[in-house]
Amino acid sequence: MRITSAVELAGADELSLAYTPGVARVCEAIAADPQNTQHYTWVPNTVAVVTDGTAVLGLGDIGAPAAMPVMEGKAVLFKQFGGVDAIPICLDTTDTDEIIETVARMAPSFGGINLEDISAPRCFEIEERLKERLDIPVFHDDQHGTAVVALAALKNALKLTGRSAANTRVVVSGAGAAGVAVTKILLEAGIKDIAVTDRQGVLSSVRSDLTPVKAALAADTADNFGRSGTLAEVMEGADVYIGVSGGTVPEEIVASMADDAIIFGLANPNPEVHPDVAHRHARVVATGRSDFPNQINNVLAFPGIFRGAFDVHATAITEGMKLAAADALADLVGDALSEDCIIPSPFDPRVGGAVATAVAEAARRDGVARR
Amino acid sequence: MRITSAVELAGADELSLAYTPGVARVCEAIAADPQNTQHYTWVPNTVAVVTDGTAVLGLGDIGAPAAMPVMEGKAVLFKQFGGVDAIPICLDTTDTDEIIETVARMAPSFGGINLEDISAPRCFEIEERLKERLDIPVFHDDQHGTAVVALAALKNALKLTGRSAANTRVVVSGAGAAGVAVTKILLEAGIKDIAVTDRQGVLSSVRSDLTPVKAALAADTADNFGRSGTLAEVMEGADVYIGVSGGTVPEEIVASMADDAIIFGLANPNPEVHPDVAHRHARVVATGRSDFPNQINNVLAFPGIFRGAFDVHATAITEGMKLAAADALADLVGDALSEDCIIPSPFDPRVGGAVATAVAEAARRDGVARR
Repeated sequence: MRITSAVELAGADELSLAYTPGVARVCEAIAADPQNTQHYTWVPNTVAVVTDGTAVLGLGDIGAPAAMPVMEGKAVLFKQFGGVDAIPICLDTTDTDEIIETVARMAPSFGGINLEDISAPRCFEIEERLKERLDIPVFHDDQHGTAVVALAALKNALKLTGRSAANTRVVVSGAGAAGVAVTKILLEAGIKDIAVTDRQGVLSSVRSDLTPVKAALAADTADNFGRSGTLAEVMEGADVYIGVSGGTVPEEIVASMADDAIIFGLANPNPEVHPDVAHRHARVVATGRSDFPNQINNVLAFPGIFRGAFDVHATAITEGMKLAAADALADLVGDALSEDCIIPSPFDPRVGGAVATAVAEAARRDGVARR
Repeated sequence: MRITSAVELAGADELSLAYTPGVARVCEAIAADPQNTQHYTWVPNTVAVVTDGTAVLGLGDIGAPAAMPVMEGKAVLFKQFGGVDAIPICLDTTDTDEIIETVARMAPSFGGINLEDISAPRCFEIEERLKERLDIPVFHDDQHGTAVVALAALKNALKLTGRSAANTRVVVSGAGAAGVAVTKILLEAGIKDIAVTDRQGVLSSVRSDLTPVKAALAADTADNFGRSGTLAEVMEGADVYIGVSGGTVPEEIVASMADDAIIFGLANPNPEVHPDVAHRHARVVATGRSDFPNQINNVLAFPGIFRGAFDVHATAITEGMKLAAADALADLVGDALSEDCIIPSPFDPRVGGAVATAVAEAARRDGVARR
């Protein structure tokens, strides 16, 4: 990645415009009205891609310096797929308060904050507190990017298998950043019968070992349907399995799902249910991998979401904006809908624009657009 | 300014190399040996241009958002004149400890830190503590950029007027960031007879109102020559006046200087001694302005200094590197030396390379080069 200048300074006159003394007039205009930042700087088109290096890909807690290549890759995708200027920031602290303070202090430099590869449960508190504190979009991509794309794919899978949201029973395996966010967006999209599992089984009020985040999730999901117990127990007859946990689901458990089952094994590079196994028992299969059909890839979401938010100078990314992004992605599939095509390709040139337009409209509806 | 990608992702294969899963191998290489950051990321060519918005140009404490245009301008100059990728960072805090903590926490993201437009005396402590804490170059340009270019110009002015460092008497007007740094580099360059003045007169031990920084400066300058009193008193017979204070020096005081006097009025846009006045009483006149000859412009120094430091993966910018930069700048003038040409133009295409080469060599001599 490189920084390039939008202007070339060919002589002293241009130098004295781009820098002192000419630049002073721009500073004074912003000092008089901070909204001029939107017109006279690169800030409104920039996002900080911030990590503490604690949950990098499947590699885990590898530290700030080693996380840089992922943040750079993300920045490249932000640019290519969303036209957003992204700056990778790797923080030399894993303390929740310090991360929040640090990001808040550098916030005047950026139009938005994309949190990345920060381990649960700290990622939830960090995102929530930054959202409260800042008037620019704050978005934890491992949560919401995954959730938006998974919801888009699921909408098409339900359509294909003739299911309605109200009559679909889902198992979400994994209660980390992605599991929590996927579950929340499914609930918002009207899918109520969800059981979320972690390594100890279904999150439910019969358990005494739940963190506050997991207890709240149990109350919104399995508790409402009296479900508890093991993964094997809730998988029996389930319509949909969404794996965001790693590990492997034994084939006999996969075989116990409902007819025309839907299986999303999103762990990378090893899906929780290998597509070869999944296809023996399910009608629609998706993974996070590029070498199988139906890739659930965050790059379908985050560039267009920030593009749309920036286009209307949004002060936040709302639930409505995420749902709109999922709808736009699902709709793009159109008549091509089939078992092997429930989500567009990242290289479909319509993706970024369609998501951005939908997100910008939703921002206006939700009252967070500044123009 | 824009971020551009060094790679274009044309399809799924390239996407899976630039991002997950391919990027994981790069992360693992850095986790195994953090020095691989130098080879596999953009970090070693990036500098954070950091301000708190408290001392922006002549505008003063205008706040972080309004400081952004200056930081962007600086970043453009870093790129054009040094090939350095610079990221503007405006901090929403003016607390010394918070600034230090924030910069230290984001330091893994950058190859160097350029502090900018932070008011004195906080700028001194912030730079010193960050230098102690970090193993990358930390450089407060308002101090050292100005000092390097002023020294280069003064060397040529002394040559032109047949003076030696040991027999030259200097008045530095202003004891802020630039005044302190100019004085220190003059001392290192062998010019000992210096009187530094602030609004209350000469910094000397007869005064009881000096901050610790000013008291230390007095001990290194006027105290050694028994000088004290007013600006007017020390200007009488002085060889050199360097103004980094703003305000105006009355013409009768200028007239009291030695024959063949040297006058640098560096305040922008209004020099402490206007060139028309200065030329009536001095032989060599320089300003910070581009519309008069002999412009003392930081852009002559900071891009080449960071370029040279980055080329050898320097862990710091030493006094030796700054002196080498000043020598390289002074030498570039060569046979063109005249009253109207004591310093190269910023658009002389040799400047960046000459400074970078000299700085890199000095880094090796000083033992701070990592390659």
